Amino acid sequence: MSKHVVVIGAVALGPKAACRMKRLDPTIRVTMIDRDNYISYGGCGIPYYVGGDVAELEGLCSTSAHVLRDKNFFEIIKGVTVLTQTEALVIDRPNKAVLVRNLINQTEDRIIYDQLVLGLGTSPIIPEIPGIGLPGVTAVTNLHQAQAVKKMISKGKIERAVIIGGGAIGIEMAEALTDLWGVETTLIEMVDQVLPTSLGRDMARIIENHMQESGVQLRLNEGVTRILGDPEKGVQGVETTKRTIPCELVIMAVGVRPNTNIARSAGLPLGKYGGLIVDNCLRTVDPDIYAGGDCIEMLNMITGQHHPMPLGSLANRHGRIIGSNITGGCDQFKGTVGTFCLKVFDMGIARAGITVEQAKKCGFDPVYTVVVQGDRAHFYPSMELMAIKLIADRRTRQILGIEAVGKGGDAVKARVDAVAALLPCKPLVCDISNLEVAYAPPYASALDIINAAGNSLENILEGRQDPIDVIDFLDVFKKGDIRVLDVRSPVQSGPFVKKYGDQWINIDQMELKKRVSEIPKDKDLMLICGSGARSYEAQLLLKNEEIHVKTYNIQGGMGMIKFSDSKFNPHE
Amino acid sequence: MSKHVVVIGAVALGPKAACRMKRLDPTIRVTMIDRDNYISYGGCGIPYYVGGDVAELEGLCSTSAHVLRDKNFFEIIKGVTVLTQTEALVIDRPNKAVLVRNLINQTEDRIIYDQLVLGLGTSPIIPEIPGIGLPGVTAVTNLHQAQAVKKMISKGKIERAVIIGGGAIGIEMAEALTDLWGVETTLIEMVDQVLPTSLGRDMARIIENHMQESGVQLRLNEGVTRILGDPEKGVQGVETTKRTIPCELVIMAVGVRPNTNIARSAGLPLGKYGGLIVDNCLRTVDPDIYAGGDCIEMLNMITGQHHPMPLGSLANRHGRIIGSNITGGCDQFKGTVGTFCLKVFDMGIARAGITVEQAKKCGFDPVYTVVVQGDRAHFYPSMELMAIKLIADRRTRQILGIEAVGKGGDAVKARVDAVAALLPCKPLVCDISNLEVAYAPPYASALDIINAAGNSLENILEGRQDPIDVIDFLDVFKKGDIRVLDVRSPVQSGPFVKKYGDQWINIDQMELKKRVSEIPKDKDLMLICGSGARSYEAQLLLKNEEIHVKTYNIQGGMGMIKFSDSKFNPHE
Repeated sequence: MSKHVVVIGAVALGPKAACRMKRLDPTIRVTMIDRDNYISYGGCGIPYYVGGDVAELEGLCSTSAHVLRDKNFFEIIKGVTVLTQTEALVIDRPNKAVLVRNLINQTEDRIIYDQLVLGLGTSPIIPEIPGIGLPGVTAVTNLHQAQAVKKMISKGKIERAVIIGGGAIGIEMAEALTDLWGVETTLIEMVDQVLPTSLGRDMARIIENHMQESGVQLRLNEGVTRILGDPEKGVQGVETTKRTIPCELVIMAVGVRPNTNIARSAGLPLGKYGGLIVDNCLRTVDPDIYAGGDCIEMLNMITGQHHPMPLGSLANRHGRIIGSNITGGCDQFKGTVGTFCLKVFDMGIARAGITVEQAKKCGFDPVYTVVVQGDRAHFYPSMELMAIKLIADRRTRQILGIEAVGKGGDAVKARVDAVAALLPCKPLVCDISNLEVAYAPPYASALDIINAAGNSLENILEGRQDPIDVIDFLDVFKKGDIRVLDVRSPVQSGPFVKKYGDQWINIDQMELKKRVSEIPKDKDLMLICGSGARSYEAQLLLKNEEIHVKTYNIQGGMGMIKFSDSKFNPHE
Repeated sequence: MSKHVVVIGAVALGPKAACRMKRLDPTIRVTMIDRDNYISYGGCGIPYYVGGDVAELEGLCSTSAHVLRDKNFFEIIKGVTVLTQTEALVIDRPNKAVLVRNLINQTEDRIIYDQLVLGLGTSPIIPEIPGIGLPGVTAVTNLHQAQAVKKMISKGKIERAVIIGGGAIGIEMAEALTDLWGVETTLIEMVDQVLPTSLGRDMARIIENHMQESGVQLRLNEGVTRILGDPEKGVQGVETTKRTIPCELVIMAVGVRPNTNIARSAGLPLGKYGGLIVDNCLRTVDPDIYAGGDCIEMLNMITGQHHPMPLGSLANRHGRIIGSNITGGCDQFKGTVGTFCLKVFDMGIARAGITVEQAKKCGFDPVYTVVVQGDRAHFYPSMELMAIKLIADRRTRQILGIEAVGKGGDAVKARVDAVAALLPCKPLVCDISNLEVAYAPPYASALDIINAAGNSLENILEGRQDPIDVIDFLDVFKKGDIRVLDVRSPVQSGPFVKKYGDQWINIDQMELKKRVSEIPKDKDLMLICGSGARSYEAQLLLKNEEIHVKTYNIQGGMGMIKFSDSKFNPHE
C-alpha cells in the first residue's frame, strides 16, 4: 500500500505541504486534520474582514480564482483527504499513529502514519486578568472570533472598544474598528512603545503619532489590572494601572505562543520559547515527523539565536519545503531575517533584521542613522516622505537591521525588501551605499533613500557625523538645556524661532560660513534642517571652522520631527 | 598651495564628486567646468518637465529644499568654483592641465590640475537620415532642447509628433506628449519590440499593448528612411520603410554614446563601446584621472563583460566614490547588475540582470518562467495583477535576470529591487523561492509573486512543468495547429469556446480527473487558466493519468494574454 502522510493543522503550512507532496508524488495518500471547520484561510486577512475591506468570510477561504478552499476542494482538486472538526489528541510515535477525536460526535480514532507533518500554529496568550472571561472579551486569531466581532460591531452595539496589546494584530484591529466602523478605540500597551519587538522607539513613535492623528487613543506604559462588567451585560470597561476606560468590546492581542502541547507530550524537544526544534530540512528529531510555520523555532540569521516567527509567509514557504522533502527532496530553510510589514491607516511600515535594543542584547555594538527623503524624485508630484533607520555593528560594519515608515507603503516595502534579500549574505554598510536599486523619477530619487541611509551611516561610523535621534532630541529639548541651530531659510525657521525663543536660532545655510561668530557656545547645539542633509554639512562646516561647541545632527531633521510629533510644529 | 581638483562635467557625477571631496577635505580647491549654463540637474526628469508633471525647468535644477543648484549655490554652500559655458578642449596629461574655452567670449585658458575628474556624460546618437537637420527635429537630452520642445507644444503648434526610438526616453516622451498635451504620437522602433536591451519580447509586448491602448501609435520593425519638410516650415513628416507619417515634431531617441572624444585624444583607453576604461576605484589608467557615470564602461556582474550603463543613479554613486577616493579613500564600485525601472502611462516596469537573448549571446543556457499574480493578497481590494519573468541558467541554476510589469509601479519595483540586491551574490533559483520579502495583505500575498516565480522556475528545471510563453503561444494559436484546454470554470471560458470554436476546449479543473478521456489527442495541447497555477496542476494530472498528448502550460495564463493582447479576450 502506498505511503500515508498525516498532516495536523490545515491553515497555512498544512495545506501547502499536503498539496505540494501530492503534486510531486500523486501516489502518496495524504490525510489532513484540523479541529476547526474553516480550513486553509488567510488568517492575516482577519483585520481586513472585520474592517470591511473583505466583505465576506469566504473571501479569506477562497483561491485567487474565487474557488472555496473547503474539504471538497482539497479532495477533488488536490487529492487530499481532510478531516475537519477533528482534534489530534496524542501522537503515538512508537506506533506511528495519531489518536484523534471527532469533535461533532466525540468518537475517537487512531490514524496510522508513515510520515507526520505538524502545522500546529499558535494559541493566543490570554493573561490571567480578573474579568478576562466576560462576554465581549475576545482574541481574533480565528475566523469564528472574527465573525463574532464583526457581528457585534455591525449590529451597532459597540461604541467603544479597548485593544490590549500594541503588536501587529492590535494595531491592525485598531485601524479596522476606527476606520470603517467609527468605534471609539483605545489601544493599551504595557511597554513604552507599539511594536516593541519590531521597531526602535523612534520609528514606533511615528506610528503612534499617526494612530493618534487617526483617532485611536493610545495608552502606553499601562498595564491592564481588571476587566469590568458582568456575565449578563458583558464587558463594560477596562481598568488599567492609570485609569478606567469604558467599553463594550475588548480585543486581546498580547501575543501568541506555539501550540505544541501535543508535540511535547510525544517527547519532541521544544526550544526556549516553546516552539519545536527542527533542522534545516524542517524535520524534528523524529525522522518521520516534520514541522514548520508558527509552531517551530527558527534560526535568526542575524543573531544566530532560534525563536518562533509566526508569519503566514514563512509558513507557506515551510509547507513547500516539507512537501518536497517528504517526497525525497532536500530543500532547506536556512533561517529568517525577520522581514515584516504592516499597514497602519495611511502609513506603511516595514522592517528586517533586528532593532538597536535587540542588537545590544546580542552583544553587538549597534550604530544607526535615520534619514528622511522622498520615495520619488523630489520634483515628482506624488512624492511622499519616507523615514529609514539603518543599523550596523560598529566594529564589523555588518548591517543588523533596517526599519522604514512612510505613506507610500509599497515604496517603503521596496527599500526594506532589497536590504532583507541581502541580509543573509551579511552585507556591510558600503554595500547599502551602493545597493543597485531601480531608478526612475516616478519611483525613486537618483540617489535612492536606501543609498542615502548607507552614506549617512558611513559618515557616522567615520566620525564625520555626530548624530542625535529624534527621541533623544525631543527629550533634551523639553529639558531646555540645549540650543537648536536651524539652517533652513528664515521663512521656514521663523515660526520656530518665534515659538521657542532663544532656544531656537536660525542661520540660513547660505550665510553660515560668514556668520559663525554669532553662534552661542554656552550650550550643546542641535543642528536641524528639513531632512538632516544640510545640517550635516553645517556640522562639517562648524568643525572645520573650529567652533568650540559640541554639535549634534538631528537625524531626519524636521521631517522626522513632524512624523513623530504633530504638535511640535508651530504651523500645525 | 592646496591640491587643485578639476571636474569636467557638472550634471550628475561631477557635482556629486565635487561636493563629496569638499566635505571630506575642505582644504582642496575644486573647479567644476561645464559647457552649459544649466548645471546639476535631473536629466531623467526631462520627460516629466515636458509632460507637465514638473511645471518649471527650475524644478529639475533645485534641491529638495527648493534651493536652485546654480553657480552661486555651489560656490557658497559647497565651496566649489564653477565655470559654466566653458568647454574643455584638451586634456594635457603630461603637464596636468586642461585647455578650456569660454563659450561666451571665446577666450581660452589653461587650468592646472592635481587630479582630474571626468563626468563627460553622453551625446545623443543622431543617425544620418536625410532631413535630420530640419527645424522641429530634436533630441531631448539637455534642458535647452526640453525647453524648446515644451514651448513648441504649449503654443499649440504640434498636433502630431513622431518619436524615433523605443528605448526608455522614447517611451517616456511618448507618454509626455500624449498624456498631457494630447499630441497624436507615433513611436517608431527599428527592431520588433520596445526596450530591446531591457526586456524580453513577451514582457515588452505588455508595454506595447498598454501604449497602444493609451493612444500611442506604435510602429515596430520599421526603419526611418527620410525626414520630410523644408527649412522654412520645418519638419512635416517621417518616411519609413513602410509608410509616411505626417508630423510637426520629431524626437530623436535612438540612443546615446559616451562623450569621450577629449579623453581619447588624451590617450586614455576606451572600451568596445567608446566608454572610458576604469578600475574598481573608478580611476583611469592615469592615476590622477578619475571617471564615472555615463562616460565609462563598467563590469556587468552577470555577464562579466564591460559596457556603458548610462543611468543617473549610477552616476551619483560613482560621484561619491570618486569624491572619497580623491581624498584618500578606497571606495569601490564593483559593477552593475543593470537594475532599471520605468513608468509607462499606468504601468510600471522594472528589470535587473540580463534578458534571455543576452544570456544566450553570453553562452548561458537560459530557462525562464513568467508568473502573473496580485501585488497584494488576492482578497485585498486595491490588488493589481503583476507579471514577473524570472530567468536562470539551466545547468547552474544561477539567476540571470528578472523582469516585472504591472499597474502597481512601486510594487513592481519592490520585487525587482529585492532580486537585484541579491544578484551580485549569484543567487540560485531556490534562493528566490525562499526570498524573505515582507508580507502583509495590503502589500503582498503570503506566498509573494517573487517566491511563486522561483517555485515555478524550479518546477520547469525539474521537468515537472513544460512551459510555453505567451508570444510563442499566440504565434502557434494563430497558425491554428494546436488546441487550448481551458481549465477555468465554464462561465470564464465560455466566451472563448464560443469565439475560437474547437480550438478552445473547456474542462473545469474540478472535473478534469473524471473527464480526461474527453481530451482530444490529435494536436498539442496548450493548458490555460487565470494565471498559470491551475493549468500547471492540470499538466501534472494529465502526465499522471498518462494521457498521450504533448502539453504546454501557458506561462501567466489569461492574465498574461490580457496584458499582451487586449483584443484576444472576447469580452473586450
